[in-house]
Amino acid sequence: MLKIAVVGASGYSGAELVRLLANHPEARVVAATSETYAGQRLSQLYPGLGPAGDLILTAEAHAPLKAGAVDAVCLALPHGESQTLAPGLLQQGLKVVDLSADFRFARTEIYEQWYGRQHQARDWAGQAVYGLPELFRDQIRKAQLVANPGCFVTGAVLALAPLLRSGLVEPRGLVVDAKTGITGAGRKPKPETAFNQLSENVVPYKLAGAHAHTPEMEMVLTRACGREVSLTFTPQMVPARRGILLVAYARLQSPATTEQLQAALQEAYREEPFVLVRGAADPWPDLACAVGSNACVLKAAVDERTGLALAVASLDNLGKGAAGQAVQNLNLMFGLDETLGLPRTGFSL
Amino acid sequence: MLKIAVVGASGYSGAELVRLLANHPEARVVAATSETYAGQRLSQLYPGLGPAGDLILTAEAHAPLKAGAVDAVCLALPHGESQTLAPGLLQQGLKVVDLSADFRFARTEIYEQWYGRQHQARDWAGQAVYGLPELFRDQIRKAQLVANPGCFVTGAVLALAPLLRSGLVEPRGLVVDAKTGITGAGRKPKPETAFNQLSENVVPYKLAGAHAHTPEMEMVLTRACGREVSLTFTPQMVPARRGILLVAYARLQSPATTEQLQAALQEAYREEPFVLVRGAADPWPDLACAVGSNACVLKAAVDERTGLALAVASLDNLGKGAAGQAVQNLNLMFGLDETLGLPRTGFSL
Amino acid sequence: MLKIAVVGASGYSGAELVRLLANHPEARVVAATSETYAGQRLSQLYPGLGPAGDLILTAEAHAPLKAGAVDAVCLALPHGESQTLAPGLLQQGLKVVDLSADFRFARTEIYEQWYGRQHQARDWAGQAVYGLPELFRDQIRKAQLVANPGCFVTGAVLALAPLLRSGLVEPRGLVVDAKTGITGAGRKPKPETAFNQLSENVVPYKLAGAHAHTPEMEMVLTRACGREVSLTFTPQMVPARRGILLVAYARLQSPATTEQLQAALQEAYREEPFVLVRGAADPWPDLACAVGSNACVLKAAVDERTGLALAVASLDNLGKGAAGQAVQNLNLMFGLDETLGLPRTGFSL
Amino acid sequence: MLKIAVVGASGYSGAELVRLLANHPEARVVAATSETYAGQRLSQLYPGLGPAGDLILTAEAHAPLKAGAVDAVCLALPHGESQTLAPGLLQQGLKVVDLSADFRFARTEIYEQWYGRQHQARDWAGQAVYGLPELFRDQIRKAQLVANPGCFVTGAVLALAPLLRSGLVEPRGLVVDAKTGITGAGRKPKPETAFNQLSENVVPYKLAGAHAHTPEMEMVLTRACGREVSLTFTPQMVPARRGILLVAYARLQSPATTEQLQAALQEAYREEPFVLVRGAADPWPDLACAVGSNACVLKAAVDERTGLALAVASLDNLGKGAAGQAVQNLNLMFGLDETLGLPRTGFSL
Repeated sequence: MLKIAVVGASGYSGAELVRLLANHPEARVVAATSETYAGQRLSQLYPGLGPAGDLILTAEAHAPLKAGAVDAVCLALPHGESQTLAPGLLQQGLKVVDLSADFRFARTEIYEQWYGRQHQARDWAGQAVYGLPELFRDQIRKAQLVANPGCFVTGAVLALAPLLRSGLVEPRGLVVDAKTGITGAGRKPKPETAFNQLSENVVPYKLAGAHAHTPEMEMVLTRACGREVSLTFTPQMVPARRGILLVAYARLQSPATTEQLQAALQEAYREEPFVLVRGAADPWPDLACAVGSNACVLKAAVDERTGLALAVASLDNLGKGAAGQAVQNLNLMFGLDETLGLPRTGFSL
Repeated sequence: MLKIAVVGASGYSGAELVRLLANHPEARVVAATSETYAGQRLSQLYPGLGPAGDLILTAEAHAPLKAGAVDAVCLALPHGESQTLAPGLLQQGLKVVDLSADFRFARTEIYEQWYGRQHQARDWAGQAVYGLPELFRDQIRKAQLVANPGCFVTGAVLALAPLLRSGLVEPRGLVVDAKTGITGAGRKPKPETAFNQLSENVVPYKLAGAHAHTPEMEMVLTRACGREVSLTFTPQMVPARRGILLVAYARLQSPATTEQLQAALQEAYREEPFVLVRGAADPWPDLACAVGSNACVLKAAVDERTGLALAVASLDNLGKGAAGQAVQNLNLMFGLDETLGLPRTGFSL
Repeated sequence: MLKIAVVGASGYSGAELVRLLANHPEARVVAATSETYAGQRLSQLYPGLGPAGDLILTAEAHAPLKAGAVDAVCLALPHGESQTLAPGLLQQGLKVVDLSADFRFARTEIYEQWYGRQHQARDWAGQAVYGLPELFRDQIRKAQLVANPGCFVTGAVLALAPLLRSGLVEPRGLVVDAKTGITGAGRKPKPETAFNQLSENVVPYKLAGAHAHTPEMEMVLTRACGREVSLTFTPQMVPARRGILLVAYARLQSPATTEQLQAALQEAYREEPFVLVRGAADPWPDLACAVGSNACVLKAAVDERTGLALAVASLDNLGKGAAGQAVQNLNLMFGLDETLGLPRTGFSL
Repeated sequence: MLKIAVVGASGYSGAELVRLLANHPEARVVAATSETYAGQRLSQLYPGLGPAGDLILTAEAHAPLKAGAVDAVCLALPHGESQTLAPGLLQQGLKVVDLSADFRFARTEIYEQWYGRQHQARDWAGQAVYGLPELFRDQIRKAQLVANPGCFVTGAVLALAPLLRSGLVEPRGLVVDAKTGITGAGRKPKPETAFNQLSENVVPYKLAGAHAHTPEMEMVLTRACGREVSLTFTPQMVPARRGILLVAYARLQSPATTEQLQAALQEAYREEPFVLVRGAADPWPDLACAVGSNACVLKAAVDERTGLALAVASLDNLGKGAAGQAVQNLNLMFGLDETLGLPRTGFSL
C-alpha cells in the first residue's frame, strides 16, 4: 500500500486527489496539508467528500514529508511554490508529482518569461518528466519527478499531436478555442468566479497569446511532431463547475478526408485506456461527457469549404486535466496497473 | 455473482441503477430493457456512463426475465406498468424491486384514488414490503417483492420519523417544503423541464395536497409513530440535475430544545451507514451535499419564537431516493453487506 | 425633473436604482457615490448597463449631497452606515429613501438586538415611515425619511397581511420558507456566493430565528393585523441571480376555502398597480415570473388535509424588493404618478 | 401609430417582438397569431411579459392581415413557412419583415441546397433586402420586404466585415467559433434543450460546414468586401437562456497591429447606435453583456505568435440577433428614428 502525501489539499485539485485516492486499492493518503485550514477536517471544506474527507489537514511544517513515512508526494500548490519545496523531498529520494507549472519547462527561461519570476530549481526542472502518459509513458515509469500537464494542454495535445505527427495538418497558425468550468480558476473567491458574474455567461480571458498554457502547448506539440508549432489559445469560462471542451483548428497540409483524421486519432489511441475516439456516426463530444471520469474524448473532421481540420476534445479539468492524471502518473511511477483508482464512468446522466 | 435485470433502463432511475451495479462487487446487470431504444447501446443515450453503459438495450419481450437467467429484477418503469409485469416474475420465484408507486400501498384504494386507475395486482400489493431499510430492514431481508419508496418520501420520513416516534412533535399539520432537481421529472422532454423554463427559476407544482407523495408520507409516518399523521407537501423544481433538499416543520408536542431533537435523530441513526446527522456546529445540509452518494443528511432545530421544530434533509433523488436505495434493498434481500456498491462520497467539491 | 443622488451606487441595489432611474421620465441621477470605485465609470463595473451606466462614481465627500443640488438621496449602503449619514441630509430638508435596515424599526432596541450595534440616530428612526406603499401609502406621501423594506419582508407581508387582517388565519406559528437569488447576498466575493458553491445547489442559512428579517416581518404584520404575529423564517439561496419565491404557511383560524383566501388577496390589491393576484386556474407563481419588473405576484390556497393556508409570493429582490420599491416610494414622496419608471414587464420569456 | 401584426407570436422571437413593441412609442401590435395557442393570452405562455403579454393569440386565418388593418407584418415563423404567406401580404402593399431564412438568399439555389426544399417565391427572394442596417441601411429604408439576418450571422458579419473591407485580413479560411443561449433552438421541447442535458454543459452541433448560417455568413461578407469569403462555423449551445458570444479568427493579409484592427472597427461603427466597439483597455465582451439590449459589442486583437486576427462579438440572439433587429428595420422602413423602442441597457448587473 503506497503512502501518499497531498500537499495543498484544500484547493480543488488537492481535494480531488484525496477523493480519487480514497478509492485507490493500492494507495492511501497519509498526510494532507493546508496552511490556511490546518487543524480542520477536509470534509468541513468539502462536505460532498463524505468519509473520503475524514482527515485532518496539517500545516506543511508538521506533516511527515519524509522517506519512510511517505512514498510519494503530490504537490497541489499555487504556481511558484513547488520549486522551493520539491528539491528537499527529491533529495530524500521521494517521488514527486507536481501539479503546478513549476517543472513543466525544461528550458526555465520560458517559465520565467511567462510566469514572471526567477526559477528556484533549474536543475530539477531539467530532470523532470512531462507527465502525459500517452506521449511519455516510458519516461514517466522511470521518473522521480513528474510535472503534471496543464489542464487545457492535456486536451489540446491529445487532440492535435496525432494530426501533426502524421503530417496531415500544418504546424503553424493553429487555433485552440477552449471553454472551461470554473474550478479551473481556483477556490479563492474572486469577482470573476462569483455566481452573479458567471451564471448564463461565457467569459473570454487572456486572449491572443496572454495565457501561459500557450507556450506549454507549443512546446509539447513541437516535441511530439518534430516541427515547430505555433498557436493562438482562447480560454473562456463557462457556467459549469468542472469540464473542458476545446475545439482545435488547423490547416490541412494537403487535401485529406475526415476518415484520415479519424484514423490518425484511432491509431494513436487504440491501446489507451483513457482516450476515447468517437466514431463518425457518434455525436461530437460535449463538455459534460467526461466530467467525473479520467477520460479524454476526441473527435475530428475536415471542413471542406476551407481546407481546415477540426478536432474536439473533452475532459474533466480536475480529472484527466489534473488530479486524475496525477494518479495515472503515480501508478506508472510505482509500476502499478495504470488504471487503478481512476473512474471511467463520469457523473452525468 | 447476482444476475440482475433492469427493466426500463433508459430512464434516469434505470440508468443510474446500471451505473451503480457496474461498481457492485457481487452483482452484475445481465439484461437492460427499453421499448423505445431497443437495439441501441445505453451509452448512446448516456455518454457519461462510459464503459458502464456498454450494453445493448432489448425489448422486454426479448429479455431473459426468467428464473435461472436472472436472480432479481429491478423495475424502473412509469407508474402503472409494474403491476402487470411483476406478478409473472414473482410467480417464477424471482425477487423484484419495484421503483414505481405500484406496490407501495398495501391499501390499494389509496393507490387507486391518488394515481387514478384500478390496481391490477392487489394481492401482491398486500405482500410487498416497503423498501426503506432504516425502518423496515428485517422485513426487507425476507421479502420477495420490495416497493422502493418515493424520493421525497425517503427524505421526509427519515427526517420526521424519529421526532414523531419520540413524541417530541405533534403528528398533525406538518409542513414538508421540498426542492428537487429536474431528473425527478423524468427524461421525456416537456415544456416544464426545458432549460429556458428552469434556469434561474424555482417552480412550485402540485401544492396543497395535489402530489401523490403526500399520502405515502402520511402512511409511512403513521406506521412509524403509531399516531395518525397529516401533512401538506410543497414540491418545487430547482435548477439542478439531481438532489432533493427538504425542510419539514412541525409543532412541538411540549417545550423541547434543539439538543433533544438532535439527540432523537442521532440515536435513531447511530448505526445507519447512509444516514448522516450533522452536529449543532455544522452548517445546515444543502442540496448538493449528498448528490452522487447514497447518503441522506439530516439536521434539526427548535425555533423558539414559534415553538416549531425544523428538520432538514438532503439526499440524491436518484441515489438514496431511487436507484441507490434499490441497490441497498437488493443487498438486504440477498443477505449481502448492505453497503456494497453504494458510494458514500458524492460528486460535489 | 427631480435630481436624485444614489449613495452606494456600486452595490447591486444602487446599480439597479441607477438603471431604473435612467428610464424615469421625471427624475435623473445627478450623483452616484462609491468609496471603493470612486473615479470609475459605473459601466466598468456593470457593462450590461450600457449608456445607463455612463456616469462617474464619486466619493461621498465629493458628491453634491446638498439642498439645491439634489432633491432626494437614496441610500444603498451596508446596514449601519445610513444612520450616521442620513441625519445631516435630513436636517437640510432633503428627502431620503434608505434601503438598509437602519430606519425600519421605530423601536430601535429591536434593531440593536438583531443587528448587534447601538443605533446612532434614534430620533430619526422614530420619524421614519416604513416604505411599503400597499400598506402605508398615505404616510409615505408625507414622509421626509422612508425606510425601504427588506426584500423578503416585502413578499411575506404582501402575501400574509390580507389573510391575517381578514381573520382567516392564526397570527401565531407562521412559517415563511423563502428562496432567493444570489444578488441578495451582496456584491463582495465570498465563498458562499461563488459559482462552484451555488450552481445546482440550494443553500439554507440562518434558520430557526437567526435572520434579521424575522422581527421585521413580525413587526409589520403585527401592525397590519392588530394582533401579535410570530413566525419562523427559512431563507435559502438558489442558483439564480435575481428573484425571491416564498411560500408562507399559516393555520386557518376557522374552516375556510381557497376561494376565501383568494378573495381576501384580490380585494386587498384590486387597485394596486404592482401586486398581481393569480386566479385559481393560473399556475402557481414561479421565481422567474417577476424578475426584471416591479411586480409582486401572489396566489393562495387551502390545504384541506391539514387546515393550513398556503400563500406564495414571487418578486424581484432588486425590484419590488429593493430599488424598484425605492423608486415607487420616491414617486409617492414627490406627488408623482406612482408607476413612473417602473417596469411591469419582466426579463423572462 | 404604426399597426403591426406579429405572425408566429408564440415562439421566442415573436414573443420578444411583442415585448419590444409594447415599449415602442410609435408602433403597437394589433394582431398576434399562433396556430397552436390560438385563443390563449400570450401571457399564459410567457407570464414574465406581464401587461405586454395581455393580448389574445389568433389563428392566422382569423387575423386582420390586410392593408388598412395593419401597416406591416413581422413573420416569426419556422423556416419555410414565410415563403408561402409573404407574397399575398406583399401584393396588398403591406411591408413585411421576415425573421426566417426564407428571403435571405437572392440566389434561391443556395437556399434550396441548404434548407433542403424548393423555394416557393423566387421572385420575391430576388427583391428582398437583407436587413442588416449597418451594411444596407439605405436599401432597407426603401424596401417593402426585408429579410432579417440570422442571429449568428449578425455577429459574425459585424465583427468581420470591417476587417475584410479594409484588407487587413484574408478572406479565405476564416473560423467562427460561436456559443449561443438556448432560445436560439426554439421553444418546442427537445431532448437537447432539456435542463438535464444542458446544465453545466457546452454542446457543439452541426460542425464543419453543416450549419445553414455558414453560406449566409459567406454571402454577406463576400458582398461586403468584394472578395470571395470562405469560413468554417462552429456553433455550440451553452447553459444560458439568451446571448451569443463568438470569436472569429482570420489570417492577417500582411503584418498589422491590434491598433489597426481596432481602428477599422471604430471607424466602421462610429455613428452606429447599436454597435459598441470596446477599447484596448476594456475587457473582452462576454456573453451576458448585451443580453436584453439591442447592442452588438465588439473587440479585436492581433495574436503575434501566429499572425492571426481575433475579433469577438457579443449580442442577444433575440435582440440584435432577431426581434430587436426586426424593430430596427421597421423603424427604417417607416422613416422613424432608428432607435425607437430599442433598449440600450441590458438585463445583467
